[in-house]
Amino acid sequence: MEALGNIPFTMERKSIVLVKPSISTPSEVLSLSTLDNDPNMERIGHIIFTYQANESYILANGNSSNDPACIIEEALSKLLVYYYPLAGKLKRGSDGKLLINCNANGVPFSVTTADCKLSSLNYLDGIDFAIARQFVLDLRPSDFDHGCHPLMFQVTKFSCGGFTVAMGMAHSVFDGFGAAQIYRALTEIASKKISEPSVRPVWQRERLMAKPAQEIVPETLLLDRNIALATSPYMLTMDIVHKYFNITAESIKRLKMMSEDQNASSFEVLGAYIWRSKCRALKLDPNGKTVLRLVVGIRQFLPNGYYGNAFIYVNVIMTCRDLDEGPFPDVVKRIKESKRLASTEDYMRKAMSIMEKRRQLNSQPDGATGASMVLTDWRQTDFGWKSFVNMISLPWKMYGDVDLCILKPPSKLDHSMKGGVKALVSLPRASMAKFKEEMNVLNHGAHFTSML
Amino acid sequence: MEALGNIPFTMERKSIVLVKPSISTPSEVLSLSTLDNDPNMERIGHIIFTYQANESYILANGNSSNDPACIIEEALSKLLVYYYPLAGKLKRGSDGKLLINCNANGVPFSVTTADCKLSSLNYLDGIDFAIARQFVLDLRPSDFDHGCHPLMFQVTKFSCGGFTVAMGMAHSVFDGFGAAQIYRALTEIASKKISEPSVRPVWQRERLMAKPAQEIVPETLLLDRNIALATSPYMLTMDIVHKYFNITAESIKRLKMMSEDQNASSFEVLGAYIWRSKCRALKLDPNGKTVLRLVVGIRQFLPNGYYGNAFIYVNVIMTCRDLDEGPFPDVVKRIKESKRLASTEDYMRKAMSIMEKRRQLNSQPDGATGASMVLTDWRQTDFGWKSFVNMISLPWKMYGDVDLCILKPPSKLDHSMKGGVKALVSLPRASMAKFKEEMNVLNHGAHFTSML
Repeated sequence: MEALGNIPFTMERKSIVLVKPSISTPSEVLSLSTLDNDPNMERIGHIIFTYQANESYILANGNSSNDPACIIEEALSKLLVYYYPLAGKLKRGSDGKLLINCNANGVPFSVTTADCKLSSLNYLDGIDFAIARQFVLDLRPSDFDHGCHPLMFQVTKFSCGGFTVAMGMAHSVFDGFGAAQIYRALTEIASKKISEPSVRPVWQRERLMAKPAQEIVPETLLLDRNIALATSPYMLTMDIVHKYFNITAESIKRLKMMSEDQNASSFEVLGAYIWRSKCRALKLDPNGKTVLRLVVGIRQFLPNGYYGNAFIYVNVIMTCRDLDEGPFPDVVKRIKESKRLASTEDYMRKAMSIMEKRRQLNSQPDGATGASMVLTDWRQTDFGWKSFVNMISLPWKMYGDVDLCILKPPSKLDHSMKGGVKALVSLPRASMAKFKEEMNVLNHGAHFTSML
Repeated sequence: MEALGNIPFTMERKSIVLVKPSISTPSEVLSLSTLDNDPNMERIGHIIFTYQANESYILANGNSSNDPACIIEEALSKLLVYYYPLAGKLKRGSDGKLLINCNANGVPFSVTTADCKLSSLNYLDGIDFAIARQFVLDLRPSDFDHGCHPLMFQVTKFSCGGFTVAMGMAHSVFDGFGAAQIYRALTEIASKKISEPSVRPVWQRERLMAKPAQEIVPETLLLDRNIALATSPYMLTMDIVHKYFNITAESIKRLKMMSEDQNASSFEVLGAYIWRSKCRALKLDPNGKTVLRLVVGIRQFLPNGYYGNAFIYVNVIMTCRDLDEGPFPDVVKRIKESKRLASTEDYMRKAMSIMEKRRQLNSQPDGATGASMVLTDWRQTDFGWKSFVNMISLPWKMYGDVDLCILKPPSKLDHSMKGGVKALVSLPRASMAKFKEEMNVLNHGAHFTSML
């Protein structure tokens, strides 16, 4: 896909404005939850949605002559009546915690054009991130101490009539599920020409505000900081490459068979396989330990419409030797078991109070270790809207990128990927070849069974 | 100055727009010169001008109730009638050279507020750059291949009534002298309520388009790429710190005396001293060579009003041992001699044709070496306007920062610095203490004479 970098095209910024709520909204200061205040969330993420041309995506009434950028801008203004905190400013209060100053400041909204066809960029599937960055609005600096916009948009219109919508999101204010809820509401208002979303947003961040734990008792399910993590010879480099890997439905099926567990989920078997592949690619010290940190949703304990961060972590810990050489079904079993233990409200409360305590002790985000992998699943976040064909996110710099793996739905245009998964993996350049090899074994391996 | 980082304040973006020329302007594509096409210029620089409150800066007619941001925005719109290329987009043509698409796209212009006093930030004198970045408009990505704005502004209004104006500039389109011309024209229109600047801008980039040299004959005055540069044990790090150093008039006087040359200029003696201090701080290998690349203006060969890049480089080369241990007057003498040799039109033409050839061979910008120092003088760039008190620029990432030294005028509010110079120096953190020591000797050294 590197070849895409050579297509010459010109970008032109047509407008940039602050979109405000269409009617007056409450002026207030809102607190954020313990989970929102996780220092690791202090990042602006960018998600890009790609829409094909020549579809009746725009209006139910068939008036397709309207400009998508104008329609989205208008819908955003209506949306912000309900999601008015997102039109405010995020900043750090004097107690060190983040808060939202609801001042109807507005959401930065940029409209640009690119004089090339979306098809010539393969609808951004497999695109070089340096090019994809052109299609997002990145208003620097975004400073969590002095004030930053929690939400921003760029609509880029291509010469084919297709367009992309890039949503910039401050992860401290909402998570992937929340982002999907917000975006669905936006497209719902845009496409149905209504003035309010069908799901009403719920703020109620106090629901997830924990009292700090008295002390932090080492417990492996919750903590990974006192573990002697394995080291990798590749982790000194600053030269990190990011890549989406396509994993077909067929491959996932094979992995499930190999797990010797009829009920194993895609998340579980993919987590196990990618974790092991990264361990091998990074040549982690066999005697050291490696941690898989699973992102577990807790929305079952929350009202519908809650859009703040609503997930906790649970650890799976193995020595690198056991992960590399041990039986694959054993890895899947451990993942399942950790997930099960983390599914109670009691675990959630305990995890939050430890997070609160931890933030008091150290408010630095975690860097990349190579030996730790945070696995998060964005496949079930339905971003809706007709003629939507592909969704990518840029690397986030969360967990130094290397320690993060995001699972995403595949491009709708790639029929061979139906039922498959796209995984965003970041690794030091020198270790990427080995990781690719592991993924090739998975996708093409005739000898897959024997190698596993 | 690090303590400034702890002042809590909130920034709020009040508006962000694309300012267009106030009347219709030519729609055309303009080429840039050989000097503009130097890959090292492919950077967006940010200069911040600080203005004190409670002054009659705004209008000659005394109507000080007007908002500075509105006045500047209106003036910018008028200015762009004359400087219409700056309202277009910079991009790379199919031949690899940069061009300007004059499409009146507009100049991004952001208005923000900060709820603190400029005095509490010491009028940005000695400010932490992480904080100063809040006051500039940094619209990422700025991509020289696919299109970027050559000019952008942010006006930040402080609670004291003072304000800052930050100008973002694509160095490929104009240099520091050009920036000063543009900014003076803007403030002239703003303060005098006129519609055209007194100095008419001159494009004429063809004046500085050179034919590529047949071959590149190694010649030390012009080239530093085939020189065995000294190495520094500190240059492996990514941890670079940036600092402005104040050098008093008294210190400069002492340096001139030490140079044993009545006619030595501040530029020459400061260049010699800072070069030697960096050589010592970086513990450069004594047997290796170090290069001082002087930035020499060529506006004497150009019409008044020319705002493109109009400078060439000339090298001074010494072994690190000679620079460190040899007599100081000898260093100054070498600098003077190189400047003299570079002052002819013949040298300028030769330098340009080599640059043109070099760009064809390798279009990568130069990284940091530690052993090379580009010295550029921004003291004579008069940015004008009443109640202007201080001017800073953010680190540019040109020459990896470490290889760049910029001389600037001091803050007008620091009376002890009258006639002095501010030097922006970037070094690996571990070597900065030694550099500070060298600068302390210069500014406070009772034993300065004997140490020199």
